[in-house]
Amino acid sequence: MSLPATGRAWHLVSRPHGTPVPENFALREEPVRAPGDGEVLVRNTHLSVDPYMRGRMNDHKSYVPPFALDEPMDGAALGEVVASEAEGLAPGDLVTHNLGWRDYATVPARQVAPLPRDTPRPSAYLGVLGMPGFTAWVGLRKIADIREGDAVFVSGAAGAVGSTAGQLARLMGAARVVGSAGSPAKVELLTSEYGFDAAFDYREAPVGEQLPVAAPDGIDIYFDNVGGDHLEAAITAMRTHGRIVLCGMIAQYNATEPPPGPNNLGLMVGKRIRAQGMIVTDHQASLPEFHREVAPWVDSGELRYRETFVDGLENTPEALLGVLRGDNTGKMVVRL
Amino acid sequence: MSLPATGRAWHLVSRPHGTPVPENFALREEPVRAPGDGEVLVRNTHLSVDPYMRGRMNDHKSYVPPFALDEPMDGAALGEVVASEAEGLAPGDLVTHNLGWRDYATVPARQVAPLPRDTPRPSAYLGVLGMPGFTAWVGLRKIADIREGDAVFVSGAAGAVGSTAGQLARLMGAARVVGSAGSPAKVELLTSEYGFDAAFDYREAPVGEQLPVAAPDGIDIYFDNVGGDHLEAAITAMRTHGRIVLCGMIAQYNATEPPPGPNNLGLMVGKRIRAQGMIVTDHQASLPEFHREVAPWVDSGELRYRETFVDGLENTPEALLGVLRGDNTGKMVVRL
Repeated sequence: MSLPATGRAWHLVSRPHGTPVPENFALREEPVRAPGDGEVLVRNTHLSVDPYMRGRMNDHKSYVPPFALDEPMDGAALGEVVASEAEGLAPGDLVTHNLGWRDYATVPARQVAPLPRDTPRPSAYLGVLGMPGFTAWVGLRKIADIREGDAVFVSGAAGAVGSTAGQLARLMGAARVVGSAGSPAKVELLTSEYGFDAAFDYREAPVGEQLPVAAPDGIDIYFDNVGGDHLEAAITAMRTHGRIVLCGMIAQYNATEPPPGPNNLGLMVGKRIRAQGMIVTDHQASLPEFHREVAPWVDSGELRYRETFVDGLENTPEALLGVLRGDNTGKMVVRL
Repeated sequence: MSLPATGRAWHLVSRPHGTPVPENFALREEPVRAPGDGEVLVRNTHLSVDPYMRGRMNDHKSYVPPFALDEPMDGAALGEVVASEAEGLAPGDLVTHNLGWRDYATVPARQVAPLPRDTPRPSAYLGVLGMPGFTAWVGLRKIADIREGDAVFVSGAAGAVGSTAGQLARLMGAARVVGSAGSPAKVELLTSEYGFDAAFDYREAPVGEQLPVAAPDGIDIYFDNVGGDHLEAAITAMRTHGRIVLCGMIAQYNATEPPPGPNNLGLMVGKRIRAQGMIVTDHQASLPEFHREVAPWVDSGELRYRETFVDGLENTPEALLGVLRGDNTGKMVVRL
């Protein structure tokens, strides 16, 4: 095929104060660069939008650099190779890479990951078999050191990471899995589709009242996607030698003033609680181990996942805002 | 010698609300029980008073049971065996055990630890070579996993645990050791006697302002004896992959309302910070390893320690209140 002369890419044009607004983003036309030696040109078919991207919209030092102003934004994407100057990659190959937020991307071959041929579920490699699923797996296996019989609490449990974490916990031998989510429909989904033993809507009553009902014998692991009042309630509910995976604090991403922290950290001393922050990209070396353990569960249907699709590159910012509001169930994917 | 017919023991007679008051305690006369088979009678010469005892005055579930009302209180003590029905223990032997707060104690032999014969510093076995020193060692070696070149911050650094933790950190290879304390005299002691690189008085200005001056390149380990604003400042100052030893939260022991927690726990995610609660009694199996590593440093004078003595069993409650107020420098010991 002849290559397109130009493509479109989202730029961040101003930094949000609090919740992002459409005016922070601009969709701009750019020349498409033909692949050089060792590169491929990818036509993106699916883009990932994820809560961590909100942090990158601020101009502060973090574990991933902030989005530059007036440059193309990036993030996980899935697409089809349309031109290749790299050995082992040919037009038609499906790959994931990190140059999302645009329709065409010229990427070094070493930064793309080819999908298994004829995979029936390519978009799963942005979700349950991609970064969100890997995050859930790392949190349970590598950070919380999950053990047979553990009671596990997951917040933000209807999201891409949370729904996978709850199911993986069960598949790894947890005795009880409970979750929180932000609407009655999501709570219903946790118990009916994802097999949580109990779930509650954190908007309905204080977490500190609902968690002890859902987990009357306490919890051994708290997988924290939320922070704030969830964390405080989890510390109170925790058994001796409990473990907290600090994975994200979505409740705080849009906050302009830091909310007060849990007032019961003193309990961590006597209960010997361990809390550990994690960033999934530290664990790339374990990716094959993750795929080996988890892909069979996806294939067998034991590990279920949902995707919320938003269509059209032009709707990518709105899709991200939707994730931050909690509009999605499971992985939010922009389909081009 | 003929055994005394009675001795005196402190009872907790009411539970404090906030700061304990003298009326919470009563010194009562009790019969002294002659040792049965496998027991020894110990005349206590030194009693330990420690911050953790405040927690035991409340009637709530914790890692050590609360003091019972109208029963003898307990805690670490050092004394001389005056009668023995146990093999291997003879009158004149010095032992540590856990039946403090009284002048005579009848103790099973398996619950006493004999001191090395002719030790020149018996009371050190209540402090730098006893539970407080062991706490500092466990925190650094087993919890924080201290590494050559680490920058270490210790709060409550003039206390028995803190002063040992700071010095041990240095002896274990820390590149920079900073501490906080609650008076100019203590701060002076940290740098002049205990070899801290920098120290500050947390009453003088916010910890969040003073810590970055004392540790301009950040910290790798925070040894937390205090909680509250210290913990918040430490999280902000922490480098990637930092570790927090949650050892005690003395600032909160007398609080009637829980103080707000750190508002920056979100930083723990991106910095991959690990915070871990610890209780020294979990680590008894490592006690020989501790003595092997640390006793030579005490003998050589490389590890220095101070003791604050209060004389007389009748002053034990006041000595405990003094520890909670911060009157002591180093280990607080009641000398009978």
